[in-house]
Amino acid sequence: MLLEPISSLRFGRLLLTGAAGHLGRELRPRLKRYCDTLRLSDLSPLEQAGAGEETVVADLADQAAVESMVAGVDAIVHLGGVSTEMPWEPILAGNIVGLYNLYEAARRQRVRRIVFASSNHVTGFRRQDEVVTTRDPVRPDGLYGLSKAFGENLAQLYWDRHGVETVSLRIGSSYAEPKDRRMLATWLSFDDLERLLVSSLTAPVVGHTVIYGMSDNRTTWWDNRYASHVGYRPQDSSEQFRAAVEARQPSLDVADPATRYQGGAFVTQGPHD
Amino acid sequence: MLLEPISSLRFGRLLLTGAAGHLGRELRPRLKRYCDTLRLSDLSPLEQAGAGEETVVADLADQAAVESMVAGVDAIVHLGGVSTEMPWEPILAGNIVGLYNLYEAARRQRVRRIVFASSNHVTGFRRQDEVVTTRDPVRPDGLYGLSKAFGENLAQLYWDRHGVETVSLRIGSSYAEPKDRRMLATWLSFDDLERLLVSSLTAPVVGHTVIYGMSDNRTTWWDNRYASHVGYRPQDSSEQFRAAVEARQPSLDVADPATRYQGGAFVTQGPHD
Amino acid sequence: MLLEPISSLRFGRLLLTGAAGHLGRELRPRLKRYCDTLRLSDLSPLEQAGAGEETVVADLADQAAVESMVAGVDAIVHLGGVSTEMPWEPILAGNIVGLYNLYEAARRQRVRRIVFASSNHVTGFRRQDEVVTTRDPVRPDGLYGLSKAFGENLAQLYWDRHGVETVSLRIGSSYAEPKDRRMLATWLSFDDLERLLVSSLTAPVVGHTVIYGMSDNRTTWWDNRYASHVGYRPQDSSEQFRAAVEARQPSLDVADPATRYQGGAFVTQGPHD
Amino acid sequence: MLLEPISSLRFGRLLLTGAAGHLGRELRPRLKRYCDTLRLSDLSPLEQAGAGEETVVADLADQAAVESMVAGVDAIVHLGGVSTEMPWEPILAGNIVGLYNLYEAARRQRVRRIVFASSNHVTGFRRQDEVVTTRDPVRPDGLYGLSKAFGENLAQLYWDRHGVETVSLRIGSSYAEPKDRRMLATWLSFDDLERLLVSSLTAPVVGHTVIYGMSDNRTTWWDNRYASHVGYRPQDSSEQFRAAVEARQPSLDVADPATRYQGGAFVTQGPHD
Amino acid sequence: MLLEPISSLRFGRLLLTGAAGHLGRELRPRLKRYCDTLRLSDLSPLEQAGAGEETVVADLADQAAVESMVAGVDAIVHLGGVSTEMPWEPILAGNIVGLYNLYEAARRQRVRRIVFASSNHVTGFRRQDEVVTTRDPVRPDGLYGLSKAFGENLAQLYWDRHGVETVSLRIGSSYAEPKDRRMLATWLSFDDLERLLVSSLTAPVVGHTVIYGMSDNRTTWWDNRYASHVGYRPQDSSEQFRAAVEARQPSLDVADPATRYQGGAFVTQGPHD
Amino acid sequence: MLLEPISSLRFGRLLLTGAAGHLGRELRPRLKRYCDTLRLSDLSPLEQAGAGEETVVADLADQAAVESMVAGVDAIVHLGGVSTEMPWEPILAGNIVGLYNLYEAARRQRVRRIVFASSNHVTGFRRQDEVVTTRDPVRPDGLYGLSKAFGENLAQLYWDRHGVETVSLRIGSSYAEPKDRRMLATWLSFDDLERLLVSSLTAPVVGHTVIYGMSDNRTTWWDNRYASHVGYRPQDSSEQFRAAVEARQPSLDVADPATRYQGGAFVTQGPHD
Repeated sequence: MLLEPISSLRFGRLLLTGAAGHLGRELRPRLKRYCDTLRLSDLSPLEQAGAGEETVVADLADQAAVESMVAGVDAIVHLGGVSTEMPWEPILAGNIVGLYNLYEAARRQRVRRIVFASSNHVTGFRRQDEVVTTRDPVRPDGLYGLSKAFGENLAQLYWDRHGVETVSLRIGSSYAEPKDRRMLATWLSFDDLERLLVSSLTAPVVGHTVIYGMSDNRTTWWDNRYASHVGYRPQDSSEQFRAAVEARQPSLDVADPATRYQGGAFVTQGPHD
Repeated sequence: MLLEPISSLRFGRLLLTGAAGHLGRELRPRLKRYCDTLRLSDLSPLEQAGAGEETVVADLADQAAVESMVAGVDAIVHLGGVSTEMPWEPILAGNIVGLYNLYEAARRQRVRRIVFASSNHVTGFRRQDEVVTTRDPVRPDGLYGLSKAFGENLAQLYWDRHGVETVSLRIGSSYAEPKDRRMLATWLSFDDLERLLVSSLTAPVVGHTVIYGMSDNRTTWWDNRYASHVGYRPQDSSEQFRAAVEARQPSLDVADPATRYQGGAFVTQGPHD
Repeated sequence: MLLEPISSLRFGRLLLTGAAGHLGRELRPRLKRYCDTLRLSDLSPLEQAGAGEETVVADLADQAAVESMVAGVDAIVHLGGVSTEMPWEPILAGNIVGLYNLYEAARRQRVRRIVFASSNHVTGFRRQDEVVTTRDPVRPDGLYGLSKAFGENLAQLYWDRHGVETVSLRIGSSYAEPKDRRMLATWLSFDDLERLLVSSLTAPVVGHTVIYGMSDNRTTWWDNRYASHVGYRPQDSSEQFRAAVEARQPSLDVADPATRYQGGAFVTQGPHD
Repeated sequence: MLLEPISSLRFGRLLLTGAAGHLGRELRPRLKRYCDTLRLSDLSPLEQAGAGEETVVADLADQAAVESMVAGVDAIVHLGGVSTEMPWEPILAGNIVGLYNLYEAARRQRVRRIVFASSNHVTGFRRQDEVVTTRDPVRPDGLYGLSKAFGENLAQLYWDRHGVETVSLRIGSSYAEPKDRRMLATWLSFDDLERLLVSSLTAPVVGHTVIYGMSDNRTTWWDNRYASHVGYRPQDSSEQFRAAVEARQPSLDVADPATRYQGGAFVTQGPHD
Repeated sequence: MLLEPISSLRFGRLLLTGAAGHLGRELRPRLKRYCDTLRLSDLSPLEQAGAGEETVVADLADQAAVESMVAGVDAIVHLGGVSTEMPWEPILAGNIVGLYNLYEAARRQRVRRIVFASSNHVTGFRRQDEVVTTRDPVRPDGLYGLSKAFGENLAQLYWDRHGVETVSLRIGSSYAEPKDRRMLATWLSFDDLERLLVSSLTAPVVGHTVIYGMSDNRTTWWDNRYASHVGYRPQDSSEQFRAAVEARQPSLDVADPATRYQGGAFVTQGPHD
Repeated sequence: MLLEPISSLRFGRLLLTGAAGHLGRELRPRLKRYCDTLRLSDLSPLEQAGAGEETVVADLADQAAVESMVAGVDAIVHLGGVSTEMPWEPILAGNIVGLYNLYEAARRQRVRRIVFASSNHVTGFRRQDEVVTTRDPVRPDGLYGLSKAFGENLAQLYWDRHGVETVSLRIGSSYAEPKDRRMLATWLSFDDLERLLVSSLTAPVVGHTVIYGMSDNRTTWWDNRYASHVGYRPQDSSEQFRAAVEARQPSLDVADPATRYQGGAFVTQGPHD
């Protein structure tokens, strides 16, 4: 059952990239209610367009394809590109070259606002006993986090120089439920993800704002005090899943980097030899 | 129906200035419950005094009148003076000379605490994508905001030098309901205004404390972290009015100063040629 | 009736020191549910051990006794030592020498985590119109607060150098109900104390974290923003007791140091000639 | 002998107000070298105009007189008004009404930059063992300091709203030499005052900048870190006068407010009954 | 004539990339004195290797070439890649792909320290009346600045994850002398550049440290307080060139973005259509 | 040859504790010039008293002896107690019990100011690539640093509660010359030590101030910005010794805790089994 809409505002045409991914599929029916036309794009095949939907297959690294994808949209929710740690080449193509192509298209076509799926891995080398604000220096935990930090800086540039507004969402762990003890802190329910996206799309002024995407979990490492103008108020909490999660993972080793750092397993996994 | 009182403490004689204004009329029955005698004052005519009430007509610019107005009171809620952008002369008379007269009278008559209606326009030139604390430098958006900044500094002086305590309330938009999209962020319900006033009057120690006056709105630009000792906990939210407000005002132009700055229309309106 | 457990994690053997004190007795049945064996220790006699309990009489100033007391435990809740303002000698013995003995024993026996009952009196010379974070410089209000500041620094050392984790709880006023107007700000309900302790014991990573122990009171002087990773969420509030407390203590004198400073009466009482 | 000019830039017509005062007289020959025409104004009689000089007698409280005084100038060095603690009426006339008149004239006549003689008494209630930056909240020590805080806020408003740039100089103690031990910290030599003024006039961008005016004294309470873009580098020090000053004033009483607070004797002297 | 060496420490083999550029040529004889062998690399032809020199032609975008270039070196001074605003493609190749290649080679070959020529354009959208520290959020003024921000984040990652140390130098304007009024603030003399490089190479511990590269100019916008452990003490100043610069450029327009922002002309120039 | 006195102020009777130690012997002739009578105390034998000198043998752990030692003095320079890492018992006796005895004696006998030799080891667990201010949380590197942190807190208490002023000097490495590369950062020349002591003794108001004691070394980790009111201006630098030091210790291992942390070898040495 869908959440009650948190805003009555509607866009004409909204673009959702990465629409075939796990968050894209979750958001497809949700975002439809906030626009007349929802354009869905991905490199992978998409389910057939329904009423008020359009589908586009586009490679973000292909500038012309991106230009077409962006044509005529009022705002963009950008989930596209690589969404986990990967070797350098796909990250370069999807998250660096691809993002540049997206913002250039947005600039040329005067798209006013982008909601950019950044990641908590931008600050994954903070310790789990530290609390981080969105103005503290970044400490990416891998190439993926590095590419998302690039994206945030690109968004800042396009606001300062070209007037394209962005909210960069440093998404925690958005799944149906938290899978391990780390996610008790980082979990973002799908309903809260919708709340965050819609707040970001409809807040009157955002310039370039960075905000962590998490539910109202009992434990947290992230402090959104500089983003209260976005109007995001999470309503869910990972607490209901605590007993099940603790049963699966009763003990953790503080000396393990995956426990000590906020990025979890990302701080050690990856393509490095 | 009146709010349940948030404190059982009672003052002997409490002075409410600006009692004929829109907030003064709203607060009259509310404050009555926290004192034995409520003295009401204004330059404009007031409704006849009821049981436990006294009325005084006084021009704040008239030092002798102010002295009489203050005689015998235990605490002051000061809403008097000019409460919106105006030409320099009335602002000078009401908010600068008038405030000096009020504090001089309070000093001489050993009034222990004043709750001073300052205004969010003290920081109206902050952008709507900024979050401001009460210790950040002021940036008034007009002569009205400038006069309120003067008032806060005067209050600080009378605490540091003369031991008169003040809570300066940077009131947002206190109306029955929010009138436009800006007020979704700045709205202060009348019940929350009462909560704020009574907390400010009854907190054991305030010295000179500055606090923003807003309800628990989903969106906010103001961070009261340095005023938690006041004990103000808003219970209302502008969210219930969102759909109606958005229907009236679906789109805003980020390039418009009235949208970009927290002061809204105040940043451009005013008496300047 | 006991609170629903806030974590399903269980320790093998948990040590509770100061178990014969007023908080120790309150926590005894509560902590039992989070461990297989609860070892209780005090200098004073303890009630007979029940199922899953062990009792130890130990003087903290006696290193060998402390070593035995700590043997075989997985974690420690340390309430032992002096818990109020006292002459120098007992404070030195219980809170300085005793604490050193406890941490040395924990280091040698590889106890992984200690929850240390520090005190709000570590910052008792802050004014009641100031809001303090756990990273602000300490300002103890007496020898007791001084000894607790020593304990926090010792805990930091044992984390940095020896890998023993500690959460230092700057406990406010933990009683069945608040006794005076100061405690409306500082009160910590017994249920919230349990929430705080269990969060501190079970959070995945704490290093050395300092956190104020208070309920969700309307008024507060303490900002736990740097400790949100602990996952403490108070559920109680002193507000229900306000009317009764205010009836007992309607007026306070701002000029009285016991009103002006957060430490209350501690800032003037004590053994000094 | 005059200091080597610190900039080769020249203004067409420069206005120096308060030119008959002790700093005005000192600056008259110094500023002449940085402009084609130096207009000198005061309420008191001025020495006859020399080559490249113009003199104007004007009451700052007289709006028409101020308008004439400002006509045709490129920049203003504003020393005019009251420059010490005085009763409210002259401070109101000279430093509040007078300053409003000056900025209104500057706005209407498109004067681009004003150097405003504010005062260290804007923060005179800071203790002498505190170090203050120009972004910390103000704490005026009297009506004079309060009026200067008003001036700084007015300057901020005219920059934010009208594009008139100001450097607000919180001048310490500018005399030929320090007169007492407090001035060992607050002294501003005349040469350094010239350096400060000329830097403030010629820095490419200042918006509204606040800066403390002090020489490179061994002891200081003021931190100009946010004003390094002004390019002020003091070259003098009070140290050469230390022995003489200490001989005159060997001991100070820490308990005396005039010793404890940065404002010195200002914190207790004044027109209050 | 060369500067007296500021350290007696010597490296075995030091790599200088971008050695054919204007700073590379300036540094070639200077760095030679701090190493047994100076390896010089560039995409452009280099002057023939002298005693103790080696030359390598390498394209940073060619991973194998970079691997060879890095083989056997103890430390790297990386000036290579694009050093001014350019279209996206060369910036991508030289400063993003090229930098990744360099760090991967350094990681695999266990090079311990890199001095990375970042740029002040990483924060070029700060205003000239703001003072910026190296921990404030970045605001690049173009694609070049964006690529340098990427480089700083990459350096942070390789320190946090792989133990490769970097000092990122946000170089101002390093020329024989300042060319315009902006460079009076941003100038870095060649001698001071050497001081900065050698400090960065020889400081015992740097982790990843960011530092602005500027001489001891009278005016500055940059605060290196978080980098004092590097031990950089500039000895030169732009002041000696002031009169000549001001003669060439007597007036600036505050409304011009090139005057208002720290990045100067970079904030508007560039390849955008 | 002795430094020119930096103040002409003189004390009646000044007490120097720890006078037989290496700093005590160095300071004995220097401090004599700032007082009529210099009382020298130590547990070890002292050289015979000269003109204007008194000698006292006293054990700091003996309260009565301390009381006599303090009788009749105007100010105290406290170097006594343990001055390096040691087992717990002597640190407890000298630096905890002994310090308590000293402050109690000072309180009872109304000594107005103490200069307390604290230590940089109070923050020895900061990394060498961090810059620390005197308001950052302490991180002692051993029992010695822990005892000095206790001393600073005790000094704060005696100021807040009893009006005894203290300057706590976090002394770096005060020797005739720096002995290793760490001391290039931490060195405090004897002349600068005198400057620091005399500034601390003669500054008009210090309350309780913490300041790092270091010369004007090219490299530093410590930021004294909050202590500029003390008026300490170092004149020496370790730079003259750099070549000799680097020759002795050309390479350091960043992975070695003694290199990585500010406390140097203290972070691993000590009495722990």
